[in-house]
Amino acid sequence: MLIVMQQGATDEQVQAVMDRMIDMGFNVHRSTGVVHTLLGGVGGKEEFDLEIFRVMEGVKEAHRIISPYKLASRHFRPGGTVVKVGNVEIGGAALVTIAGPARVESAGQIALCAQLASAAGAQILRGDATRPEGLRQLRDAADRYGLAIVSEAGELSEVDAVSGIADMLAVSPRNMQHGALLRAVGTQRKPVLLKRGIAATVEEWLLAAEQILSAGNYNVVLCESGIRTFETYTRYTMDLSAIPVVKKLSHLPIIADPCHATGRRDKVAPMARAAIAAGADGLLLEVHPDPDRAESDGAQSLSPAQFDELMRDARRIGEVMSRR
Amino acid sequence: MLIVMQQGATDEQVQAVMDRMIDMGFNVHRSTGVVHTLLGGVGGKEEFDLEIFRVMEGVKEAHRIISPYKLASRHFRPGGTVVKVGNVEIGGAALVTIAGPARVESAGQIALCAQLASAAGAQILRGDATRPEGLRQLRDAADRYGLAIVSEAGELSEVDAVSGIADMLAVSPRNMQHGALLRAVGTQRKPVLLKRGIAATVEEWLLAAEQILSAGNYNVVLCESGIRTFETYTRYTMDLSAIPVVKKLSHLPIIADPCHATGRRDKVAPMARAAIAAGADGLLLEVHPDPDRAESDGAQSLSPAQFDELMRDARRIGEVMSRR
Amino acid sequence: MLIVMQQGATDEQVQAVMDRMIDMGFNVHRSTGVVHTLLGGVGGKEEFDLEIFRVMEGVKEAHRIISPYKLASRHFRPGGTVVKVGNVEIGGAALVTIAGPARVESAGQIALCAQLASAAGAQILRGDATRPEGLRQLRDAADRYGLAIVSEAGELSEVDAVSGIADMLAVSPRNMQHGALLRAVGTQRKPVLLKRGIAATVEEWLLAAEQILSAGNYNVVLCESGIRTFETYTRYTMDLSAIPVVKKLSHLPIIADPCHATGRRDKVAPMARAAIAAGADGLLLEVHPDPDRAESDGAQSLSPAQFDELMRDARRIGEVMSRR
Amino acid sequence: MLIVMQQGATDEQVQAVMDRMIDMGFNVHRSTGVVHTLLGGVGGKEEFDLEIFRVMEGVKEAHRIISPYKLASRHFRPGGTVVKVGNVEIGGAALVTIAGPARVESAGQIALCAQLASAAGAQILRGDATRPEGLRQLRDAADRYGLAIVSEAGELSEVDAVSGIADMLAVSPRNMQHGALLRAVGTQRKPVLLKRGIAATVEEWLLAAEQILSAGNYNVVLCESGIRTFETYTRYTMDLSAIPVVKKLSHLPIIADPCHATGRRDKVAPMARAAIAAGADGLLLEVHPDPDRAESDGAQSLSPAQFDELMRDARRIGEVMSRR
Repeated sequence: MLIVMQQGATDEQVQAVMDRMIDMGFNVHRSTGVVHTLLGGVGGKEEFDLEIFRVMEGVKEAHRIISPYKLASRHFRPGGTVVKVGNVEIGGAALVTIAGPARVESAGQIALCAQLASAAGAQILRGDATRPEGLRQLRDAADRYGLAIVSEAGELSEVDAVSGIADMLAVSPRNMQHGALLRAVGTQRKPVLLKRGIAATVEEWLLAAEQILSAGNYNVVLCESGIRTFETYTRYTMDLSAIPVVKKLSHLPIIADPCHATGRRDKVAPMARAAIAAGADGLLLEVHPDPDRAESDGAQSLSPAQFDELMRDARRIGEVMSRR
Repeated sequence: MLIVMQQGATDEQVQAVMDRMIDMGFNVHRSTGVVHTLLGGVGGKEEFDLEIFRVMEGVKEAHRIISPYKLASRHFRPGGTVVKVGNVEIGGAALVTIAGPARVESAGQIALCAQLASAAGAQILRGDATRPEGLRQLRDAADRYGLAIVSEAGELSEVDAVSGIADMLAVSPRNMQHGALLRAVGTQRKPVLLKRGIAATVEEWLLAAEQILSAGNYNVVLCESGIRTFETYTRYTMDLSAIPVVKKLSHLPIIADPCHATGRRDKVAPMARAAIAAGADGLLLEVHPDPDRAESDGAQSLSPAQFDELMRDARRIGEVMSRR
Repeated sequence: MLIVMQQGATDEQVQAVMDRMIDMGFNVHRSTGVVHTLLGGVGGKEEFDLEIFRVMEGVKEAHRIISPYKLASRHFRPGGTVVKVGNVEIGGAALVTIAGPARVESAGQIALCAQLASAAGAQILRGDATRPEGLRQLRDAADRYGLAIVSEAGELSEVDAVSGIADMLAVSPRNMQHGALLRAVGTQRKPVLLKRGIAATVEEWLLAAEQILSAGNYNVVLCESGIRTFETYTRYTMDLSAIPVVKKLSHLPIIADPCHATGRRDKVAPMARAAIAAGADGLLLEVHPDPDRAESDGAQSLSPAQFDELMRDARRIGEVMSRR
Repeated sequence: MLIVMQQGATDEQVQAVMDRMIDMGFNVHRSTGVVHTLLGGVGGKEEFDLEIFRVMEGVKEAHRIISPYKLASRHFRPGGTVVKVGNVEIGGAALVTIAGPARVESAGQIALCAQLASAAGAQILRGDATRPEGLRQLRDAADRYGLAIVSEAGELSEVDAVSGIADMLAVSPRNMQHGALLRAVGTQRKPVLLKRGIAATVEEWLLAAEQILSAGNYNVVLCESGIRTFETYTRYTMDLSAIPVVKKLSHLPIIADPCHATGRRDKVAPMARAAIAAGADGLLLEVHPDPDRAESDGAQSLSPAQFDELMRDARRIGEVMSRR
């Protein structure tokens, strides 16, 4: 920890800050410069609220020198992590596509989606279940076409049920900072797909991943899902620079969700291609046999023909990126 | 509903849009202008996804003419709503202050906070309980000083417990668009404090309120809690213009939470005064006997002395605003 | 124009709005619905301030039915526009690369940059001149290597000088809404590179282009340069979805500037590749013989080796996009 | 300057960073920790581009310890600055109101505005001149009612003319980072009203002020004018927390412009009151004898009656803030 005192900070103010640091177990090194007094702190608690120092009298700045995330940092595994979902590897040499409807509507609908997904080359089937039988229908459809499945655990109380059936649990953007849920998916055994909150910085996102890893589950895949900006033509703005940023800061795989990000079916293909070109490990796509009549999120679901064409282009761009 | 077709849209495109509108139960009126064809739709479903039309071929714009929220609109109750929390009225002639710690830490801490709150003139005690006995300690402390209480229901499964003891349930910014939770707090009997999501527009916020009202609970108080912007000196940016905007669009009372919004104790008082001057019905404040040693959110908690001074100023500005 | 009155708007309010519309030359059609009164206006002034209606008593919404931009809209030239810069075509079958330093520092530096740019396959040399001889040095360097040049006109008073020497004039993000400058570059003969303001929506950007086109200059190329968001790891956030959005709404070519957008040399290549994959017509790149020692913007300038590698990848992704 | 190297940074990487620091004149102190190597730099150039270090291999973070602004910092003048505009003091005990139309339209219009402004208690008349005689008309109108005047210098070439006649020069939000213009208003003698750019952080704003102060002109008043966010009901979002933040970081006075920020006449009064309650030194208001027929910005201009009522309320809130 490094505290920079304001120019002209009084001795009492400096002392109060030092006392507070010592209280928290830090060894303090004071360095009195011409302009600013600096206080370096070593060896204290790993988790503490830096803001406490920022609002103290006489403090100009407070910096955390050591990353607030460790297990999620690239340094922890310089070679990168490959997460296994069923038999599918995310973060390895091959691009991965997760496809399916927003919601499991019926056994017939999800089976049709599984067929579409499989035929176009997707490896994992997605679908959120709002009824108890939904998860079972998802499993059956996936099994018939040899796909793995990912489904959302939207509440603490749903973690066990989803974890029991699905191959991967999704945490939605809204829940990205839901501490109790992060701990819960961190203590079960299935891999986790952690979507970025629409108002979350990359650092906050990696901190959320850290909470899952800290609980013992190292199989986390990040998913860029769009952030809220002032531009309204698309629902959110896809922050594709987050892909190379995450690749530098963390060892975790990262995929992209252009459907949630743009909210518009006609913008999904260009953003999906761009995500691959930016280095993403895969795509999360909404596809529906008849998007105009989907129960939910139809406007952002690809039709089978759009999906097929996108898959072909994505593969070719993947080759430029040395992906299979 | 009004659809504006692109200049040069084909007859097939116009017809496809009309068919889709008729499918959804609308009577369609077509008006062919020099530049654009307009399609007006009357009488169809109240809830539908406008995006479906925006991505259809040949469509330039799609507008919902009737407000997506009705029960929450000012027109529904032009005189405004007064929400009763225990014996306290929010939205009436008097300003209301809700004060207390972020979390109930112990019986002693919450009792001390209740004493502080009461002495400075607050009417409602806040405190989130992370342990089962927390709610009970909150209730006891509040009762001793004649205060009502508000506490958060963070999960669906917590609604009943909080509703059974507290006088008002809070929905956190993160949960503002948690549909199932909104319906759950809408079917229980206690009033609800609905905080604005940090990435939510005013319209999305009023739509969330509408979900609670639709479920039968008309006692909703809105709380401006800050929105995420590019400015980083404060944690979020308090959107005080939301206060007069909500007052115009809706009949629901609105209060302000400068602690959550700024994240910095030294900026709470100016923003609290400003909120009153902008027309807020009250304040939600974090106060702690010893903020530097609070378990949670200490940097944004007022000390007893700061709280006291703020209450005096807020009252004087309230007088300018014709508030008691 | 379409005005939606509030539910319960009085006859006086409706009449006042109608009077104002008639004043502005509109024929008004009133339609009284069960819930809302609608006022349609046809045939009035093309340019008017819609906000005037939004703040009138009793008005709920005001929509402009006809696009605020016409010459810039896709409908005006459905086949798209190819802009010629010297002998280089932007918006045609081939991808175009504009490369060079942020600033012309010396005859030697710019000559070296021109050599680099040319060797790696760029067609246009960029460089802003802060000294009078700078433009001349830029011209000389470009001519030696057969490149066209683009340079910024930062002030009204600079338009003539830059237009006299350069092949294309750049308008910086800061000046995107500088009306007088837009008119000035619209009345001279050289093509214009119009960069997006960091806080501008796509609609505001197309409106700025419309001002140039309205003044008689149809040779406008748009350049996505990043928008300001809450994410701070990169300087701005590159809004790549703007590329397909602009392609749909307008006939103007669009290129991307990943150096300005990210502010970080190590994120330029992935974002440049992504821009091509999203459909951009070309790239604007900062390259410097020794970026660490550049006078300006060194952190966001590519080294010669980085530039070379990027050009190879961009070409391969261009092929997937059917670009030469 | 403080550089934090990544965990596992190589000796070559550390050395390269040290070499670069030494090149720039810094004395470097190396501190090798268990996790990170820290490099402290003292005594080098005051102005340098920190980004250069952020993109070097092996660098995790780079911090500037000494404020990038000095003359504008609170420490430079702990007691605060009072700026004199004609005979009017901004930043002293009294609240100041600057009022007038967006543009000088005619001698008659500006005279009427001056009368309105004066009658309601404003001390300074505003008005931007788009024709040469406009400044003269502004001066005449102001003189007749004993008001000082502020007018915008929108281009470098306008600085002399405006400085010759007006009592204060305004720099618009668009020009907040126009370096050459900042230096030009910094070398003339009249005080400067520096509006915040709509995408500028408080730090960038104070850096812009620093450029004016560095050029020798210490009479700078800041003006919060709204920032762009995702909320669209108001044109921009007024960041009132910037007022107490600036008061802490800087000695410069700060006023607020609720007309530009909200873009809606019906939201000006609440935000103006709130700005005073947050600690602003004054207000900048657009007022027009007949806003519905103003040539420019009518929707955000107060009518005479609205202006009068607001002035009364602002004075009363000013009293609570110990303002005359």
